[in-house]
Amino acid sequence: MRGTVLYGSKDIRFEEVPEPKIEKMTDAIIRLAVSCVCGSDLWPYRGIQSVTEPTPMGHEYCGYVEEVGSTVKSVKPGQFVVGSFAMSDNTCPHCRLGYQSSCQQREWVSRAQAPYMRVALADGTLVPTADLPSKGMLPSLLAASDVLGTGWFAADAANVKKGSTVVVVGDGAVGLLAVLSAKQMGAERIIAMSRHEARQKLAREFGATDIVAERSDAGIARIKELTNGIGADSVLECVGTQEAMQQAIQSARPGGFVSYVGVPHGVELDGQQTFFSHVHLHGGPAPVRRYLPALIDLIVKDKIQPGRVFDLDIPLEQVAEGYAAMDERRAIKALLRP
Amino acid sequence: MRGTVLYGSKDIRFEEVPEPKIEKMTDAIIRLAVSCVCGSDLWPYRGIQSVTEPTPMGHEYCGYVEEVGSTVKSVKPGQFVVGSFAMSDNTCPHCRLGYQSSCQQREWVSRAQAPYMRVALADGTLVPTADLPSKGMLPSLLAASDVLGTGWFAADAANVKKGSTVVVVGDGAVGLLAVLSAKQMGAERIIAMSRHEARQKLAREFGATDIVAERSDAGIARIKELTNGIGADSVLECVGTQEAMQQAIQSARPGGFVSYVGVPHGVELDGQQTFFSHVHLHGGPAPVRRYLPALIDLIVKDKIQPGRVFDLDIPLEQVAEGYAAMDERRAIKALLRP
Repeated sequence: MRGTVLYGSKDIRFEEVPEPKIEKMTDAIIRLAVSCVCGSDLWPYRGIQSVTEPTPMGHEYCGYVEEVGSTVKSVKPGQFVVGSFAMSDNTCPHCRLGYQSSCQQREWVSRAQAPYMRVALADGTLVPTADLPSKGMLPSLLAASDVLGTGWFAADAANVKKGSTVVVVGDGAVGLLAVLSAKQMGAERIIAMSRHEARQKLAREFGATDIVAERSDAGIARIKELTNGIGADSVLECVGTQEAMQQAIQSARPGGFVSYVGVPHGVELDGQQTFFSHVHLHGGPAPVRRYLPALIDLIVKDKIQPGRVFDLDIPLEQVAEGYAAMDERRAIKALLRP
Repeated sequence: MRGTVLYGSKDIRFEEVPEPKIEKMTDAIIRLAVSCVCGSDLWPYRGIQSVTEPTPMGHEYCGYVEEVGSTVKSVKPGQFVVGSFAMSDNTCPHCRLGYQSSCQQREWVSRAQAPYMRVALADGTLVPTADLPSKGMLPSLLAASDVLGTGWFAADAANVKKGSTVVVVGDGAVGLLAVLSAKQMGAERIIAMSRHEARQKLAREFGATDIVAERSDAGIARIKELTNGIGADSVLECVGTQEAMQQAIQSARPGGFVSYVGVPHGVELDGQQTFFSHVHLHGGPAPVRRYLPALIDLIVKDKIQPGRVFDLDIPLEQVAEGYAAMDERRAIKALLRP
């Protein structure tokens, strides 16, 4: 079969790769219904994260179970499943406390931009839907696998609740779905930071009440102005840069909550600054598995449409165009159809 | 009157200073019952924090109201009061949300190692006791003013609750009272990190179930060993150095809580490390005012004896010896009697 491999900066190839096989009794093989390109794929694509060898790409997935290992009990061939980018046993102490993305047996998914993939720890990782989903529901179920689960974690980790004043830093797919998540959790005011018209529009449709186009000190000043000089209860940092993190910390009120869900690149926190800011900080790779059953339920009941972040829909073999479109911000997120 | 002034590294003088006066209608003047030397006073005393001019010292206090400004309503002359090192109006948005040490009108106390002092924002800052306390109770009430309130915040900010496994990094007065606080909040296991015999003993008396003398990587390994490889639910960092912070972050389980309550000196956090550690981080200058009524109540009812951290009891005029004894770790904490 052919799959996606990154060779170096801006060098994505769709080429012959080995077909996945059951390697352990706990594995499953799935046929992907849809896959996509993630904002985090752009770090190595842009050369910000070095690529030392040809690297198979893709970690967002949903699809049909083709085959399972001999000990797999909770899913069976023919079922439709969604899993997280972090494969987890869902039984270790970290998983039981809701941190499946720090599972003691954790493995990262890395070959999902392909027609078939192997899922390790299938019993812990995969969540089946009750029925086979309609075609129209596939993009939203795919979003649950990472961007929605990550946006949801951003809102949860920043303690968003009924009545909260929320700021979302970052207007990528995760930031936009963090807006949707904050809305679902009852936030009263959701301020999206964005200077991109199409993204501002989608943010408003997902629940943003205010848009702030300013950045850095001007952006912080604008947030203070919008919150009567107090700062926000919750700030969701969905980028992963030093600038975004500074924006987030300084936009929160003392005692407020800052979450950060994009892998930090070059982020250093000054101890005294975070100390006197009085903020709560929590983040990390989103424990998407914790939220999957609830998110799938919301999607299947059509209460949320996270799949709307996909504004480019192309055949899998055109994956290189998906990367390029996202890199150049021509697309928010590229859906790939095997 | 004579008060305490720091002139430079290791140069503490007890010398003539102006008597405090009511400067604003919201002020009060109190006669100190007792005062003390704080671990944080050692930063400038040791020259780690520069001293550019003669600096009046002391920020822990309790005593008798002598005089109040014309608008002060909640305390009156003759009453015994306890206040926090952060003076606050207790009515601004940050105060109402429990972060009085980030009050919009905040002022820092800085002249408490003296017989009399001025307290700003008296209505918001001072909490009177129902009756005049016994002499034996004074050290514990003084502790409530900072070290107990700070240890309590450490436990609260690190989400300590019934059944928690807790690690306390730092065996100064704050660390020891963080142990006491964790015990009060129902922690099941409290691991105190200390290599000092007298402090280990007091930690055990305050509720520590285990003592770890190892530091750095060996200390982290020992915590992992004591927690079945999982890490602690809550880690209370009561020092303020890079080593202590690293110890704390690496001792917590994924999803665990790290609090930090000592002003960080030279602490830098690596974004990727905190991200993948999956910890919650919260700290800052303790909002002691939030806890004062409850802490005073526990002390007056003799349910806790935080004053036991004072193992040196000297006349105020010998304040220089108090600093020296704490600097050389001959004393945990020096009580000063005006």
